[in-house]
Amino acid sequence: MIIILKSNVSDEQIAAVESRLKKMGMEAHISRGIQRTVIGAIGDEHKLDKEALEALPGVEDVVRVMKPYKIVSRESQAGDTIIDISSHPLGGNKIQIIAGPCSVETQEQMDQSAAAVAAAGCSMMRGGAFKPRTSPYTFQGVGVEGLVMFQKAARAHNLPIVTELMDVRMLQTFLDHKVDVIQIGTRNMQNFDLLKEVGKTQVPVILKRGMSATISEWLMAAEYIAAGGNHNIIFCERGIRTFETKYRNVLDVTAIPVIKQETHLPVIVDPSHAGGKAWMVPALSRAAIAAGADGLLIESHPRPAEAWCDADQALSHEQLTQLMGELRGIAKVIGRDL
Amino acid sequence: MIIILKSNVSDEQIAAVESRLKKMGMEAHISRGIQRTVIGAIGDEHKLDKEALEALPGVEDVVRVMKPYKIVSRESQAGDTIIDISSHPLGGNKIQIIAGPCSVETQEQMDQSAAAVAAAGCSMMRGGAFKPRTSPYTFQGVGVEGLVMFQKAARAHNLPIVTELMDVRMLQTFLDHKVDVIQIGTRNMQNFDLLKEVGKTQVPVILKRGMSATISEWLMAAEYIAAGGNHNIIFCERGIRTFETKYRNVLDVTAIPVIKQETHLPVIVDPSHAGGKAWMVPALSRAAIAAGADGLLIESHPRPAEAWCDADQALSHEQLTQLMGELRGIAKVIGRDL
Amino acid sequence: MIIILKSNVSDEQIAAVESRLKKMGMEAHISRGIQRTVIGAIGDEHKLDKEALEALPGVEDVVRVMKPYKIVSRESQAGDTIIDISSHPLGGNKIQIIAGPCSVETQEQMDQSAAAVAAAGCSMMRGGAFKPRTSPYTFQGVGVEGLVMFQKAARAHNLPIVTELMDVRMLQTFLDHKVDVIQIGTRNMQNFDLLKEVGKTQVPVILKRGMSATISEWLMAAEYIAAGGNHNIIFCERGIRTFETKYRNVLDVTAIPVIKQETHLPVIVDPSHAGGKAWMVPALSRAAIAAGADGLLIESHPRPAEAWCDADQALSHEQLTQLMGELRGIAKVIGRDL
Amino acid sequence: MIIILKSNVSDEQIAAVESRLKKMGMEAHISRGIQRTVIGAIGDEHKLDKEALEALPGVEDVVRVMKPYKIVSRESQAGDTIIDISSHPLGGNKIQIIAGPCSVETQEQMDQSAAAVAAAGCSMMRGGAFKPRTSPYTFQGVGVEGLVMFQKAARAHNLPIVTELMDVRMLQTFLDHKVDVIQIGTRNMQNFDLLKEVGKTQVPVILKRGMSATISEWLMAAEYIAAGGNHNIIFCERGIRTFETKYRNVLDVTAIPVIKQETHLPVIVDPSHAGGKAWMVPALSRAAIAAGADGLLIESHPRPAEAWCDADQALSHEQLTQLMGELRGIAKVIGRDL
Repeated sequence: MIIILKSNVSDEQIAAVESRLKKMGMEAHISRGIQRTVIGAIGDEHKLDKEALEALPGVEDVVRVMKPYKIVSRESQAGDTIIDISSHPLGGNKIQIIAGPCSVETQEQMDQSAAAVAAAGCSMMRGGAFKPRTSPYTFQGVGVEGLVMFQKAARAHNLPIVTELMDVRMLQTFLDHKVDVIQIGTRNMQNFDLLKEVGKTQVPVILKRGMSATISEWLMAAEYIAAGGNHNIIFCERGIRTFETKYRNVLDVTAIPVIKQETHLPVIVDPSHAGGKAWMVPALSRAAIAAGADGLLIESHPRPAEAWCDADQALSHEQLTQLMGELRGIAKVIGRDL
Repeated sequence: MIIILKSNVSDEQIAAVESRLKKMGMEAHISRGIQRTVIGAIGDEHKLDKEALEALPGVEDVVRVMKPYKIVSRESQAGDTIIDISSHPLGGNKIQIIAGPCSVETQEQMDQSAAAVAAAGCSMMRGGAFKPRTSPYTFQGVGVEGLVMFQKAARAHNLPIVTELMDVRMLQTFLDHKVDVIQIGTRNMQNFDLLKEVGKTQVPVILKRGMSATISEWLMAAEYIAAGGNHNIIFCERGIRTFETKYRNVLDVTAIPVIKQETHLPVIVDPSHAGGKAWMVPALSRAAIAAGADGLLIESHPRPAEAWCDADQALSHEQLTQLMGELRGIAKVIGRDL
Repeated sequence: MIIILKSNVSDEQIAAVESRLKKMGMEAHISRGIQRTVIGAIGDEHKLDKEALEALPGVEDVVRVMKPYKIVSRESQAGDTIIDISSHPLGGNKIQIIAGPCSVETQEQMDQSAAAVAAAGCSMMRGGAFKPRTSPYTFQGVGVEGLVMFQKAARAHNLPIVTELMDVRMLQTFLDHKVDVIQIGTRNMQNFDLLKEVGKTQVPVILKRGMSATISEWLMAAEYIAAGGNHNIIFCERGIRTFETKYRNVLDVTAIPVIKQETHLPVIVDPSHAGGKAWMVPALSRAAIAAGADGLLIESHPRPAEAWCDADQALSHEQLTQLMGELRGIAKVIGRDL
Repeated sequence: MIIILKSNVSDEQIAAVESRLKKMGMEAHISRGIQRTVIGAIGDEHKLDKEALEALPGVEDVVRVMKPYKIVSRESQAGDTIIDISSHPLGGNKIQIIAGPCSVETQEQMDQSAAAVAAAGCSMMRGGAFKPRTSPYTFQGVGVEGLVMFQKAARAHNLPIVTELMDVRMLQTFLDHKVDVIQIGTRNMQNFDLLKEVGKTQVPVILKRGMSATISEWLMAAEYIAAGGNHNIIFCERGIRTFETKYRNVLDVTAIPVIKQETHLPVIVDPSHAGGKAWMVPALSRAAIAAGADGLLIESHPRPAEAWCDADQALSHEQLTQLMGELRGIAKVIGRDL
């Protein structure tokens, strides 16, 4: 059961609802988001008196949610959530393409990248200062300094930045550097302490699907963030692990319509990590948009062959520009803007 | 090594090439197709004298093919193969949508289906007279009589028919009933004796990918058909088996560009078996065409809820018509016809 | 619903039961096995009058089976089935180790193999005359002649033979050559026409699990054989396909206790195809027996490095003999004979 | 390349080796363990002068390691590592069974569990104070207080304790409470910052395999810990994710001999999480020991049906005692103690 509160609800009213729920034998999980505050009532729902709750001051609606994910569930909100990312909307009719390098390398590389990303018509930028690498002996990212270089380059083109947070102890630094979107990587999708902490902020979060996470586990991971009060969650499908070895991962396009049915939150796709090869990216990108994705997270680099990591999968800026044209055409066919 | 012969090559010339290969210590696999006759030379390629072979009468080209699949390999033929299906081309610029019911039920159902398939703008029709069912106690198809009903309905609209062959002993019956395209199902992708037999005919074959077949195994299965002389092979991606349980299979869109890179033969997609739910079919269909598929194999039914099998996944004729419109738009964006 | 008939039931009595079932609106699937004849009643079970059926002459028991697999289900028979393989029992307290080469090569190789298999204490022998190979250009088995060589070698040591049937048209030849156990390979687990045909014989069948077959699909494939009247079915776990690439397949030991819970039929394990390397075979063999398998299907060869196929995975005869000692020890710990 | 240093090596000698490596153009990763200090030399190995390095004071051996994992690789140490866990050896001839409840609940439950675990003949105990749960609304563990209850109960029976660390910020608390073995759970196998931190301690670490981690990724995750100087690493196979839905995970027994070939470190198995049902645990436990595992991590509970989490999979203390008897028999057959 989800109790949705009015936008002008007072602390006293919230406390009253909480107290009433406890009397009914339920646990109350209060989640104060920007757009709405909701209370998840957990326990035996037979004990709940829906009408009594609806009559309480400050309560807008009481919704039975059968799914184990509550706040993120489409049952709890019929309309699509549009997330405001530093004044750029994500999740509505407009499709957002987020491009940029795998990792922050140098100021020059970031400046060139930002200029090209903006020129190609993208309105947000990606780049990693901290990299989750399989081997401890390979490049681990340039670190905090990378956030500075990234912001400098991106701000010059009014591009909000997306960057990965791996360590819970680094969250405050991300907030200090005004990271616009925090990315939770595939290896941390069930790092529950990390999820809980970003759930306490209001910074939009891109939650990548775990390598072999089911749709249900993915939604529950998002619920960890939502339960803390951060409802600005963007799902990102990035390919799943299967028996096939010819490509890095198998992009699960079916997840796109299914996630959109299960949740009111937006879903984007990372075609670069899915395929693992630059030449596969255009086909996968077109497929993702055609299937209904709300955006893409694409790797691009001024000189792909020289990229410090994942050189094989970055698009050149020419390739990115050309792809944007095709995507605009497909967006139009399905009645969306890009 | 593949020896490609001239179109007017004589039997004596073929025998001479074969004899020369044997002297070089190689085994010769002669494959006489409609469009070209090729000889696969298997053995230690170091023993081969490429120039001597090229000089033989009747030899057009000698190509080193590193891949274990030879005739179907893109290395052996750079251009795309266009397969002629009773005067409808498959594999070139034109995208072919093949629609129809999961199984043949009655003459009336087939007549209505054929009329609707044609009206929606599809130029081929699908339908199963023999059904591979998980349980021996469920409907196994109407059998040979189904081929008759199917042909009667489809011919009235000039639609070539696609239907599944499960039992090698039934092949002659399929030939007698002039089946236009033989479908080899996912469970029989490595039924090698069946592949060898259809390889002896010239009837176009749709080879569905095995439930957990790798790209490489799939190509090798096609090579079994090609080695027999039937080069009219169409790959059909229909979703793979993974850990995800929310949908029937995971449609592997990455396989589309990868198969097109590895082989000169066309690849189509079955979005109905992939997702297993009718409401997923439009998104998956759009994704497949956007990713570069040469066609689709879609289940449609006059009254989906009454279908004798897979009722959940069939589109109504209205849904099919609407989908065709979207697909036409996407085809245009990527420079193809539909 | 399963109607189990008395051992001395007459054809008239069977017909009477069938007729009564039809009146109740059910379909009757009669399956005449050696040990028992059963009738599977398929349809809406609410229409069934259990007591009326039990009162009919010739009826021993009427059992409600909730599972979709009926005759093979543990619900239909509580005790373990012991299959008689040319006077050697499989499925009871005695564990059977079946060893021999991947493929029949020469009479000498088979003679040496049979002598060694018998000397190691194994009481059955394996060997393939027809081989399902990924490539059409590799060795496909020596064919019918191989059955002759195999029988000659094995009979000298009183070893029943196990060999794979791939083509339904070859079944009569297998019967003519008195093959003791027909193996259905992993690629044919859902070749339903092949299953139906072996179901009409009474020859014991080893049914290998499909590469990515679920437990439920595997049981249903066995039900295809059982429905035809052949109840002599042995399940064989041979490793499943996963994301792991370090070994050929992942031996699914959990399947052993689970299959034994779901069915009264025996289950054996093929440790050779599971791991794909000879050095892994002892560990996997010990694990399988410790987990409760009723037998093993092991590849051994007089000179493993010279084997015509799967040379990497065959045990030498010394290795086989040593392994038998360890397995005997483990069998004893769990109260079984070997 | 791995440079193994003498046990009495001085800091000056280490610095000299490091300096020499840098001159050769290599990066030096110094890892000071209890039993040995090693330096991983990363870079282009062609530049390395092996003999010059071997001649340096304090250097015992210089070993070329081709695998991407260096310190944990069997190439870097031929003999098995025996880890000392509060005076109990793990990794040698002795097999260690670690039992206890899924989660710490109450002092009484822990006292009863500890007494039973010791009585059954186990010499270490498991129990979780912090639980990684799929849903934010379910029991998350009793927290730090649980460590106190756990230690009190276990110390009374001289049982070292094994408990899971999820949050890097909690590491110091674990050290303060003298946790004997830190468990890194399956969801955190690639939480690299957590691995780096436990790598700075000398507390033995059980590293559970990620749900779909390859053998290679698992070894690399261990290398993250080893690179920091903590060489006391125990691999724990706990079942992998596959397409099969009949059981929680598929226990990968093949991983046991393979891991033992690839690394000198011990490997144990968690049969409880693998199968997910108590009735499967004995078969899986026997299989694991028969395949060569160095130990087991088993869930047991005084009253399984009342367990606060994973009630389905806990053994009763009677079942645990009986299983120990079987395992002892199998250990003896393969020449080990238990």
